[in-house]
Amino acid sequence: MDKMNDEFYMSLALDMAERAQGQTGINPVVGCVVVKDGAMIGIGTHLQRGTGHAEVHALNMAAGKAQGSTAYVTLEPCSHYGITPPCSQRLIDEGVARVVVACEDPNPQVAGRGVEMLREQGIEVEVGLLRSRALRLNEKFIKYILTKQPFVTLKSASTLDGKIATRTGDSKWISNAESRELVHTLRHRHQGIMVGVNTVIADNPSLTTRLNVPGLNPIRIIIDSTLRLPLESAVVTDGLAPTVVVTTEAADPARKAALLAAGVQVVAAGSGPRVDLQAAMAALGGMEIGSILLEGGGTLNGAMLELGLVDRVVLFFAPKIVGGGAAAAGTFDFPGVELMRDAVTLEGLEVEVLGDNVCISGTPAR
Amino acid sequence: MDKMNDEFYMSLALDMAERAQGQTGINPVVGCVVVKDGAMIGIGTHLQRGTGHAEVHALNMAAGKAQGSTAYVTLEPCSHYGITPPCSQRLIDEGVARVVVACEDPNPQVAGRGVEMLREQGIEVEVGLLRSRALRLNEKFIKYILTKQPFVTLKSASTLDGKIATRTGDSKWISNAESRELVHTLRHRHQGIMVGVNTVIADNPSLTTRLNVPGLNPIRIIIDSTLRLPLESAVVTDGLAPTVVVTTEAADPARKAALLAAGVQVVAAGSGPRVDLQAAMAALGGMEIGSILLEGGGTLNGAMLELGLVDRVVLFFAPKIVGGGAAAAGTFDFPGVELMRDAVTLEGLEVEVLGDNVCISGTPAR
Repeated sequence: MDKMNDEFYMSLALDMAERAQGQTGINPVVGCVVVKDGAMIGIGTHLQRGTGHAEVHALNMAAGKAQGSTAYVTLEPCSHYGITPPCSQRLIDEGVARVVVACEDPNPQVAGRGVEMLREQGIEVEVGLLRSRALRLNEKFIKYILTKQPFVTLKSASTLDGKIATRTGDSKWISNAESRELVHTLRHRHQGIMVGVNTVIADNPSLTTRLNVPGLNPIRIIIDSTLRLPLESAVVTDGLAPTVVVTTEAADPARKAALLAAGVQVVAAGSGPRVDLQAAMAALGGMEIGSILLEGGGTLNGAMLELGLVDRVVLFFAPKIVGGGAAAAGTFDFPGVELMRDAVTLEGLEVEVLGDNVCISGTPAR
Repeated sequence: MDKMNDEFYMSLALDMAERAQGQTGINPVVGCVVVKDGAMIGIGTHLQRGTGHAEVHALNMAAGKAQGSTAYVTLEPCSHYGITPPCSQRLIDEGVARVVVACEDPNPQVAGRGVEMLREQGIEVEVGLLRSRALRLNEKFIKYILTKQPFVTLKSASTLDGKIATRTGDSKWISNAESRELVHTLRHRHQGIMVGVNTVIADNPSLTTRLNVPGLNPIRIIIDSTLRLPLESAVVTDGLAPTVVVTTEAADPARKAALLAAGVQVVAAGSGPRVDLQAAMAALGGMEIGSILLEGGGTLNGAMLELGLVDRVVLFFAPKIVGGGAAAAGTFDFPGVELMRDAVTLEGLEVEVLGDNVCISGTPAR
């Protein structure tokens, strides 16, 4: 049974924020609960960029009765005028007596100043309750706000022998329905979805979010060094989400013009024969794409991993063995390391059993 | 808290049998608990081939006081004179009133006759309590007794990209200490351990059981089509366990003589250029090796799997990614299937998290 304490309210605030993942775009997800005289008087969560912050929604619900209350906020209240006025000021104006914060806002424009503002006005502030859960919840936002580069989640589904297709290229289906539901939830939770052009040529995927409830489609990002993306492919023609093609400065201007005319954005990353993936991440970050789900083939996955551009790895394993040696594509195709001790190692491993599939995820150690 | 009922006693009988796995050789593991007037009066487990069966030990402990008692036995009591007299007769002679059996003995020499003997004498017999656990416990014995071929457990430890070594061949260490402890427990629980000669040439392993308590060393089985096994390798010289080399009828007689002189058994399986693995299994079964732990490289693993000779697959995954493409050896190296739906599929999947390693095991679907 739940015990009523600070954690009781903060965990609700985190639950609300968690459900909003994917719908706040480049913004963090934040939840807020305002409690007074033994009961909640307001709850709120940030829902969409450009609309009210969590504290604002919760205080609006409290309707002027927050004097002397305690506010639980999953992320440090903002201290700066952005699209909306600073939440710290609103908490002060409403007469909130105590603010419990799960984690500091790493945004250099805030970074402690929100807490400072509150304390200067005599408000009791506690920081750090359920911090690790709160940090994890906003790992995409944190990476982006500190580096201006997207947080990349590499997702793959393979057999137990690490294959994403048989030797003939057959890949339908590897994972089960439950795994695929999780993958589409991941799509909803990322601003962009990235594949190599070979995937588009081979499978003509829509790369949209398909769930039992409607979800948001991520921006389709196609890595395409020589602009081979067919103009008739679904990502060009279906209009279900914006499509960005990342190519090089050497790309054929006529192909580029054709893609632009078809409504596709074209971004140049590097001037070599292959897309410069580091430059690509910087360019996509510059377009305010703060999170990317990488559903690449072995080559793109391997290259991104080797360059240290992958922030999280989510691997689904189906209980199958297909063999096929080098003819059967694997999850990661890259020159690789010489010594086992130099392997890319995943930290903070999480293992989830999904019927007869297993999901293993973690963060590549730097 | 435990509830006292039939399951209460049968689960103890199974626990006892479980701990004896590996020490009964070709025999099944069996536990027995005798209960009278609300208390246990005897418990027993079969410990070693040629020594007392579980029922005999338990009834010996009961010291003639089993009249009217209930006996819980994990496997149907035997009805035939083997190395020891039939247990059904002993239960009858002792005046046991009720016998609860977890599973029938598939041994054609028993197969229901043990239960029949008891019932003919008016003893109340119930069969099937905790049957699936009991069947699983003796899966090795059951395969052997029905087919005269060894039960093969394929064990491998790989990275998340299915590699058992880096592109330079480095493989130390993939799995963690906890996984290795489980592997050595598996060695104790199998009568034989099988590798290809290339593994011996590359690593010169002892293939013994090394645990924090002493365990039993399995018979070392080396698949060696052209008798390349070095005479100075540990499995030939260390004397820690018998070693059997499986080769072909075309093997060089001088090499064979040298191995025999060194105390190694040499078995011919097939007359082709490569060992006929099906013939090898029949030959090893004929030598009363009823269970084999296969710790092969990709080629041997793949060949055994393709031939349907693997009864259980136990895969340890370490949270590493090493790349290396075809140059880095994988767990399974075989031509493989054309279509994903024809993959070898593992059923009854079990997933165990061992620190930062994950163990996935199952039974190949036939």
